[in-house]
Amino acid sequence: MMNRRWVLDHYPQGAATKDIWRLEDAPIPDLQPGQILVKTRWLSLDPYMRGRIAPGANYTAGVAPGDVMQGGGMGEVIASAHPGWKVGDLAESMEMGWQTHAVLSPDLPGAKATNRVPEDIPPQAALSWLGMPGLTAYVGLTEIGRPLPGETVVVSAASGAVGQLVGQIAKLMGARVVAIAGSDEKLSYCEELGFDIAISHRDPEMAEKLAKACPEGVDVFWDNTGGVIHDTVLAQLATRARVVVCGRIAVVDKPAGEDIGLRSSARLIVTRARVEGLVVFDWWHKRTEAIRHLQQWHAAGHIRYREDVLEGFERMPEAFLRMMSGANIGKQLVKI
Amino acid sequence: MMNRRWVLDHYPQGAATKDIWRLEDAPIPDLQPGQILVKTRWLSLDPYMRGRIAPGANYTAGVAPGDVMQGGGMGEVIASAHPGWKVGDLAESMEMGWQTHAVLSPDLPGAKATNRVPEDIPPQAALSWLGMPGLTAYVGLTEIGRPLPGETVVVSAASGAVGQLVGQIAKLMGARVVAIAGSDEKLSYCEELGFDIAISHRDPEMAEKLAKACPEGVDVFWDNTGGVIHDTVLAQLATRARVVVCGRIAVVDKPAGEDIGLRSSARLIVTRARVEGLVVFDWWHKRTEAIRHLQQWHAAGHIRYREDVLEGFERMPEAFLRMMSGANIGKQLVKI
Repeated sequence: MMNRRWVLDHYPQGAATKDIWRLEDAPIPDLQPGQILVKTRWLSLDPYMRGRIAPGANYTAGVAPGDVMQGGGMGEVIASAHPGWKVGDLAESMEMGWQTHAVLSPDLPGAKATNRVPEDIPPQAALSWLGMPGLTAYVGLTEIGRPLPGETVVVSAASGAVGQLVGQIAKLMGARVVAIAGSDEKLSYCEELGFDIAISHRDPEMAEKLAKACPEGVDVFWDNTGGVIHDTVLAQLATRARVVVCGRIAVVDKPAGEDIGLRSSARLIVTRARVEGLVVFDWWHKRTEAIRHLQQWHAAGHIRYREDVLEGFERMPEAFLRMMSGANIGKQLVKI
Repeated sequence: MMNRRWVLDHYPQGAATKDIWRLEDAPIPDLQPGQILVKTRWLSLDPYMRGRIAPGANYTAGVAPGDVMQGGGMGEVIASAHPGWKVGDLAESMEMGWQTHAVLSPDLPGAKATNRVPEDIPPQAALSWLGMPGLTAYVGLTEIGRPLPGETVVVSAASGAVGQLVGQIAKLMGARVVAIAGSDEKLSYCEELGFDIAISHRDPEMAEKLAKACPEGVDVFWDNTGGVIHDTVLAQLATRARVVVCGRIAVVDKPAGEDIGLRSSARLIVTRARVEGLVVFDWWHKRTEAIRHLQQWHAAGHIRYREDVLEGFERMPEAFLRMMSGANIGKQLVKI
């Protein structure tokens, strides 16, 4: 039995292309005590991965050429040298990687741990609304954004894996939700989710429509995109607004020097707004709290979600590029 | 007896010029119960005033053409209809205005109150290190920046009214201080104050020198200027840095659309940095706490300061332009 895996061939210049990865087969190492062997069933595609394939310093170590591509996934235990895990258990881990078989150490701390997948949900939910994207939305809203009932929350990439949850949790917290997305289908989905207003970032009147949607300004801005959307919303912050800087998919492929736009110091002073970067891996100690809330909200019918599924391990690069280009609606996954 | 006063003639287009104000004489109104009449001795010039003479929305009401120019000052009570104030008392207030005689209501709340000037200090200190700039530096560092011993604090406009205090209080909190200023004389003054390193923002190698001065990144950035300095420092934030956005004198005269520079979302995510606007008038409830600390530090020989004094009420516009152009070192004041 061999492990089929995607390794990074070379760093991308600008936007990623399929040829930066290559498929290879490798033997599966023997398990050490405390390890398990997992056969991958679902792999997750997330924008943070773009940072992992850049040579520059980031918040954690990246993927070097020749390394297996990093990524979260879930699968079934097919061999175990860990007393707490048995063959047939379902396991989820950020350490899965783009490979058909992963040797995991369940007891590693924090975001390196292996988690059990609850039995009563579709198993891929552990990579989506009940997994890392759900935790991101939960901690970003409850710890940083903290919308009050009646406040206005603007979320960019609102139909995406994180955005769809941010809007719904903000609604559960009593806020008005103004969604920003980029296609008619995405905007329709935002309306289906019960968001109050959905605005296209491709609309030349985006700023005017946002102002109309937020007559008293933007209290919480959840920024998944950066770029022009970021500038437009920052210009309309309310006093004491909170901005959760979570993603920058609109500008992530650009060299730092090209990432230009309105500087925000005037609005930040006038509004006393707070801006704070969010890296969900810092908040892993909140995982149990988040998951209990998410499960309870879901059981009560409050959490809806979409997945955007490609089938076949060979399609991992295609899925990555699909997510980076914004072609997906909801959580991008690959079923193995 | 007449009140001589500077009124706003018209809003400036771009940078302020002397002709936007005009001098006029007006009768002094009779005192109502609870009011005092103060003969101005010292007037303060502060960058926040630039926001007050712009027509756009700001955090507080501005000066309309025909109004007396707003500004803080101190003086001597020459008539009183308030039981707690008597002729000869020294009074300081943000409500003084650019005028030789001010009718004040000492019991107004918060930043509108009239404060007594301590007897054991030069009275103009109530406009400088023991007044609003001192409060700004104190609350910005203790409530927002919160430098830990051994952390690195970068302060821009480090020789100015606020900057000179930020650096000294940061040193008292045990931090390393890297000062940014714009002339040899200012840099020398920063070194006299005991700041660890002083860098010119006119140096084409500012970024390299900053990197060398902050080998582990910038833990706290006190931003008084915005502009290129802001961009340069933001690119070097350490993980969990705190940025106090206090001023934007480098870009304040520019229309919002021209205030462009590096967008910071990449650094903010990677570092989880927090950026927060500071308006000292929100923190007036901390005034007593700040003043007690400042007095005690001063008494112990830890607080040094410079004042940049012009003499003569007729020189108010000149003093304002001097401050806005950065020609002053330390607190800009006018002695009446």
